[in-house]
Amino acid sequence: MHHYQWAKTPPMGWNSWDCYGASVTEDEVKGNAEYMAKYLKPFGWEYVVVDIQWYEPGANSSIYRPFVPLEMDEYSRLMPAVNRFPSAKGGKGFKPLADYIHSLGLKFGIHIMRGIPRQAVHQNTPILGTNVGARDIADTNSICPWNTDMYGVDHRKEGAQAYYDSLFQLYAQWGVDFVKVDDIAASKLYGTHTEEIKMIRKAIDRCGRPMVLSLSPGPAPLDHATLFVENANMWRMTDDFWDRWELLYDMFERCYKWCKLVGPGHWPDADMLPLGNIGIRSVDGGGTDRMTRFTKDEQRTMMTLWIIFRSPLMFGGELRDNDEWTLSLLTNEEVLHVHQNGYGARQVYRENDHVVWTSQDAEGNQFVAMFNISEKRSVVSVSLKDLGCMEPMKARDLWAKEDLGLVKHQLAFELGPHQSILVKLSPAVGKGL
Amino acid sequence: MHHYQWAKTPPMGWNSWDCYGASVTEDEVKGNAEYMAKYLKPFGWEYVVVDIQWYEPGANSSIYRPFVPLEMDEYSRLMPAVNRFPSAKGGKGFKPLADYIHSLGLKFGIHIMRGIPRQAVHQNTPILGTNVGARDIADTNSICPWNTDMYGVDHRKEGAQAYYDSLFQLYAQWGVDFVKVDDIAASKLYGTHTEEIKMIRKAIDRCGRPMVLSLSPGPAPLDHATLFVENANMWRMTDDFWDRWELLYDMFERCYKWCKLVGPGHWPDADMLPLGNIGIRSVDGGGTDRMTRFTKDEQRTMMTLWIIFRSPLMFGGELRDNDEWTLSLLTNEEVLHVHQNGYGARQVYRENDHVVWTSQDAEGNQFVAMFNISEKRSVVSVSLKDLGCMEPMKARDLWAKEDLGLVKHQLAFELGPHQSILVKLSPAVGKGL
Amino acid sequence: MHHYQWAKTPPMGWNSWDCYGASVTEDEVKGNAEYMAKYLKPFGWEYVVVDIQWYEPGANSSIYRPFVPLEMDEYSRLMPAVNRFPSAKGGKGFKPLADYIHSLGLKFGIHIMRGIPRQAVHQNTPILGTNVGARDIADTNSICPWNTDMYGVDHRKEGAQAYYDSLFQLYAQWGVDFVKVDDIAASKLYGTHTEEIKMIRKAIDRCGRPMVLSLSPGPAPLDHATLFVENANMWRMTDDFWDRWELLYDMFERCYKWCKLVGPGHWPDADMLPLGNIGIRSVDGGGTDRMTRFTKDEQRTMMTLWIIFRSPLMFGGELRDNDEWTLSLLTNEEVLHVHQNGYGARQVYRENDHVVWTSQDAEGNQFVAMFNISEKRSVVSVSLKDLGCMEPMKARDLWAKEDLGLVKHQLAFELGPHQSILVKLSPAVGKGL
Amino acid sequence: MHHYQWAKTPPMGWNSWDCYGASVTEDEVKGNAEYMAKYLKPFGWEYVVVDIQWYEPGANSSIYRPFVPLEMDEYSRLMPAVNRFPSAKGGKGFKPLADYIHSLGLKFGIHIMRGIPRQAVHQNTPILGTNVGARDIADTNSICPWNTDMYGVDHRKEGAQAYYDSLFQLYAQWGVDFVKVDDIAASKLYGTHTEEIKMIRKAIDRCGRPMVLSLSPGPAPLDHATLFVENANMWRMTDDFWDRWELLYDMFERCYKWCKLVGPGHWPDADMLPLGNIGIRSVDGGGTDRMTRFTKDEQRTMMTLWIIFRSPLMFGGELRDNDEWTLSLLTNEEVLHVHQNGYGARQVYRENDHVVWTSQDAEGNQFVAMFNISEKRSVVSVSLKDLGCMEPMKARDLWAKEDLGLVKHQLAFELGPHQSILVKLSPAVGKGL
Repeated sequence: MHHYQWAKTPPMGWNSWDCYGASVTEDEVKGNAEYMAKYLKPFGWEYVVVDIQWYEPGANSSIYRPFVPLEMDEYSRLMPAVNRFPSAKGGKGFKPLADYIHSLGLKFGIHIMRGIPRQAVHQNTPILGTNVGARDIADTNSICPWNTDMYGVDHRKEGAQAYYDSLFQLYAQWGVDFVKVDDIAASKLYGTHTEEIKMIRKAIDRCGRPMVLSLSPGPAPLDHATLFVENANMWRMTDDFWDRWELLYDMFERCYKWCKLVGPGHWPDADMLPLGNIGIRSVDGGGTDRMTRFTKDEQRTMMTLWIIFRSPLMFGGELRDNDEWTLSLLTNEEVLHVHQNGYGARQVYRENDHVVWTSQDAEGNQFVAMFNISEKRSVVSVSLKDLGCMEPMKARDLWAKEDLGLVKHQLAFELGPHQSILVKLSPAVGKGL
Repeated sequence: MHHYQWAKTPPMGWNSWDCYGASVTEDEVKGNAEYMAKYLKPFGWEYVVVDIQWYEPGANSSIYRPFVPLEMDEYSRLMPAVNRFPSAKGGKGFKPLADYIHSLGLKFGIHIMRGIPRQAVHQNTPILGTNVGARDIADTNSICPWNTDMYGVDHRKEGAQAYYDSLFQLYAQWGVDFVKVDDIAASKLYGTHTEEIKMIRKAIDRCGRPMVLSLSPGPAPLDHATLFVENANMWRMTDDFWDRWELLYDMFERCYKWCKLVGPGHWPDADMLPLGNIGIRSVDGGGTDRMTRFTKDEQRTMMTLWIIFRSPLMFGGELRDNDEWTLSLLTNEEVLHVHQNGYGARQVYRENDHVVWTSQDAEGNQFVAMFNISEKRSVVSVSLKDLGCMEPMKARDLWAKEDLGLVKHQLAFELGPHQSILVKLSPAVGKGL
Repeated sequence: MHHYQWAKTPPMGWNSWDCYGASVTEDEVKGNAEYMAKYLKPFGWEYVVVDIQWYEPGANSSIYRPFVPLEMDEYSRLMPAVNRFPSAKGGKGFKPLADYIHSLGLKFGIHIMRGIPRQAVHQNTPILGTNVGARDIADTNSICPWNTDMYGVDHRKEGAQAYYDSLFQLYAQWGVDFVKVDDIAASKLYGTHTEEIKMIRKAIDRCGRPMVLSLSPGPAPLDHATLFVENANMWRMTDDFWDRWELLYDMFERCYKWCKLVGPGHWPDADMLPLGNIGIRSVDGGGTDRMTRFTKDEQRTMMTLWIIFRSPLMFGGELRDNDEWTLSLLTNEEVLHVHQNGYGARQVYRENDHVVWTSQDAEGNQFVAMFNISEKRSVVSVSLKDLGCMEPMKARDLWAKEDLGLVKHQLAFELGPHQSILVKLSPAVGKGL
Repeated sequence: MHHYQWAKTPPMGWNSWDCYGASVTEDEVKGNAEYMAKYLKPFGWEYVVVDIQWYEPGANSSIYRPFVPLEMDEYSRLMPAVNRFPSAKGGKGFKPLADYIHSLGLKFGIHIMRGIPRQAVHQNTPILGTNVGARDIADTNSICPWNTDMYGVDHRKEGAQAYYDSLFQLYAQWGVDFVKVDDIAASKLYGTHTEEIKMIRKAIDRCGRPMVLSLSPGPAPLDHATLFVENANMWRMTDDFWDRWELLYDMFERCYKWCKLVGPGHWPDADMLPLGNIGIRSVDGGGTDRMTRFTKDEQRTMMTLWIIFRSPLMFGGELRDNDEWTLSLLTNEEVLHVHQNGYGARQVYRENDHVVWTSQDAEGNQFVAMFNISEKRSVVSVSLKDLGCMEPMKARDLWAKEDLGLVKHQLAFELGPHQSILVKLSPAVGKGL
């Protein structure tokens, strides 16, 4: 799995969906990239991802306009809408924007829908490097149930792989570093589109440029775990995640179910972080323009779970509107160390909605995330023995960056509803204690 | 339910699918109609139905060509392909052909697919009598999984009912007497399309012309029995039926499950009769040009089940190629009496693949269909008591038109595998016996 | 279907479950019977039914005590617990109680669980009239998921039918007129127990005494409609029904789905009427000892739906605690006329939670039930044309017993949330108007 | 996960089911143990497992006698039937047999059914160390659909964990090293019994003796992968496996789906090896007393898949009847090296029923299993590049123990239907080639 090396640690970046729906513009992308370069790059954040429908000139929210004409090249490939991405004019596609992102020392990502444009199929436009037309490779029973842009591609048809090859060839020319493919990991109509995943894997491997492959939407079924692990760098464990407690509550179970499949190059994905200013031009998730509806406790609980589990971290808000608190969630290097260097994360126990996770690093430190996801304040505890630790250990609160002293038998904290704590345990022996 | 009166007895006719797939031509339709008028009309056969894709100029078998352009009028309505139906030229549609069929004393039917042409939606062509276009009424998540011609219509959209009204207005102008709507009673992707059934019911009621409504494909789910009974004249109990014993064998269970829903105006449908010369330009059902693969015993068994149950009878073969045997299956007036006048059909018992059904008529006759659907010759019997009869009864073999004498206690016949017998029991009392 | 004649109209009676759970006593049964004889018999109420676990000496609520010893005779047949039913002492079973009920001019019913007592199986007690033991006929994979009394009986085993025969022979000796068999029409574990239904049908037919057969629990699946119609007199369309609006709201859909299967002798059942004083020794349905939680409007709406649909009417409360209002719901002869003499009930339409049903009688009267099941006051209307009526018609409010005058075009009433009205339309022509 | 260390490599042993069904005797167990000690122990085989119903005195085949009395101690715990296991007399249980097995340098295993004996529940016998009885802890809706011995245990009841603790305390006293728990990993009635798995895990951890935990039957659902990985040492990927090609064919897909969950201490299990003389007193799997129905090619193909995947290896035949061929399958140390030391097994590709798997060891060797599971002879090949190898590599046929020379670009072998080859690739560089 050569492609594993393109995502040795879980990817970190920004995505336009939570704030701009299907309608983000070049200026907004650049503005967020500049913010990232200035404030977040030192902490490991690097991907700037343009989400769905950049090829739709009239997109203005998170609601897709059905059956409308899309910007497309002569080979059935969708192109950026020039009214929204002016630098794409003259067929230059995303190359100028990617170049700009790269000039900031960052990486550039795009979203695509599985398949081939329906308009290409009904017009039977050509497939690059083949004698066939779009009509010949479209799957006759394969649509996306929530977006009318594409038909699926039938892997049994001659020209099918060539089409996907032609796509990624183009993206490589543009300088794309990250591709989020949608309507593929889970479809309410058809299940997982396993064969198109394989075609895309092959097309990326052939295109000559490293690109992280992210699969959506979720919940990706565990029954296809091997397929996801082998072919993608990240895949969604969940349907779209928004700033509602029930969704965060459910994520604990999802992380438990997938934790044995986490590893270098292959990252089950808890979805984007709906933090800061979101919903600016999106009505998805039941909200409008707002600062995240999560409380501060919930925000930290979310970050802590994503971090100990090692989900990819994709910030969903308009970065330039971050307040100090929001920025602090993204720039705690002690916390991010757990995300980038922890391994072997597992749920130690879950009882009465007290949940404890642990992971470790190569230097012998152990990390413990303790959550109270019940509705009442209570003491959450865990014994060093259940963590598999040698006693005694030095403890440190990573979010607060405060030492907690020596722990002999157990960790125990009184936590409010939805509250959590992330603790680092270090060997105390021989440290002069 | 006014429309019940348009099908007081189960419809009888001919349909082009089993012999010509999607490709029947005007000449072939006329030829079969002429045969029907000459040989079958006296026995009650009356409908001549043009099956799927009469609007597809290039149709040449039972395999649909995906995404090809279709003949369509300015109002998003499909029109007969003039190369196949020459009389339709100049926008006359099926009116001339319908007129001809009517001139033979017969009735004319067509097949349509649920929904609106995808090409209309992508071109956004107008809907008659509205300000909206096809794009506005198409359901964004509604395709047929086995044919790419149409999108479903979303009943919540303004103009949706107007579209269906405009269709049936046109069909009324043509003189259509029977409409078989497909991809609606059961969809492997979506279940039953209940709202489109209701829109079509309303459109027919408004169009001013009686039209029998037939819904396909099956198996229609019993969970929607009331909907079918109230809105349609017939609906399919089964997926496509062909000349394979397993399918016929399964029909016994289907008839059992639906028998309480049979009644004047509403007829659960066991599908077309794949008899005589079928598969001429069809590869559906796993065959090619052939005389039916059913044995003579199986043909009679099929006819007997359809008749006692009161399924609609739609002959599927090229009528002009009928041999004497085949014709004899369609022209036995004593047998057809059971179909047109029997009522209260029920399965008396089923044991070890011996199956007995019974029905009665208003004159006090009782009909008994006895089937051996096992693989070994054996005696099938039923007591008069289990039939609810007064003893003694006079018995007559209806297929053979032979009297069987007086029956005192039970009927019993030795039947070969797949063989059956249809018996009429008449009161013997006071008849001078 | 000889047994149809035992329930030519939908049965009406009282059942002990809603007030006493599994714990009713002989005195309570007698007391309710005496009330019925005095106040309700003239209106057609006749069945007095002892519900579940009359064989469990320690039963004291609606919660079953698992795995406890049960009262049983030497032939593996459960017997009334003598501490609760003193007249049963000396092996007399329910005969004395049935005699008493009969002496009041009423009919006597009991509840049984499908199958054979687990204690019989583990002790391998004999089956009457056979050489086999309980162990030989028990189905090795057939339990009730909510009660531990019985194992299912395997119809393929020798002695299985004999066991059921022995049961109904005993019940016939006792003088039972009505049997409610539970855990049979729908099982969350196994679906419908079709073969045991057939064995019970046969056993009743053989026992020599007419007994109405009622099947529980629901929702009975429509896929087995024929089986229910042919073998039972009534069967549950719903899981246990209680005094909660959501359950009543859902019943409209259930009635719609089953309405074509209603007819003399076979009655889809909307379950008992949780009216008056219920929950006396029951915690089922989320309540305790109380007068029904339904508002008066809801009570009438429930009665009106049950009546126009022709569900069996089984009163669930302690009859002796009825107030005047409650009694008035049971003793309106004009309303009950619709229940006993209406036929052809169908839902005319349902739109925005306005629902209109209609039925008719043999004298040319038409009944119209109009419901507002939405949450806001509004006008519910229906045109005479949609009812299939000749104009003009005389209208009468049956609950209020008030004439409403002549109706020319439509009926329209302003109804509060959950409110309804039941109207009789009579031909006005030639009546001197 | 301390218990991982008890099965650092996939367990190897013998199990009585395939040859003796539920009826194995002490003599037979001892005989097989002696054979293992003599012929197989040097190759790593060590477990001797007594399969199902050792507590059933009358067991005589693979068909369970329903509802019969079982040997049980005073604390509701099943005990070996003394007529079958004479050394168990006087309440000694399996201690003497375990001692004997241990004296041969082997380990001893038993099979148990999830839950508590039904006879204990109906008699309400005590639970050791508690004040409750069997009736108090039995789950009221939890049976095994294919065996009537037990009820499930409800983890919410007081005494539930104590019961399981009392079981494993007893097994620890006996000297049990391996427990196969049945009716727990997958139930056709209820899915996976997750809570009982956790209770058993806890009971073993508390009992003070290392015991390998094996869960049956399959297919265990991937949706519970984390649960299995964390709590068990092995769990079944499949329903019972027998000597039928279709089952072996299907195992390739099962291994693909589970391969990412294989690791030290936790082994997805492809089930027992139906090799040699099986079916001696078993009719399961559709056979009787026979040498395995697998061809020699199929036997090697099975062994090769189990070995590269690292399934546990449990021989199912009567060892003493092994012929030389059968023994040779179990004693090839070069092949077994792959089983004990390979890691990272993955399917390189599957195309047209050509399947290639690979794994590696810590010394830099790579193992390649190439399978032709199609029905026609053909060449199966794989490039070194797809294997991720440095060229050139030395190749060796491990079953034949023959060097195949230097491989530069690809491995390619002509294989008959169902045939396979297992190749070791070793670095050729610096080896004087």
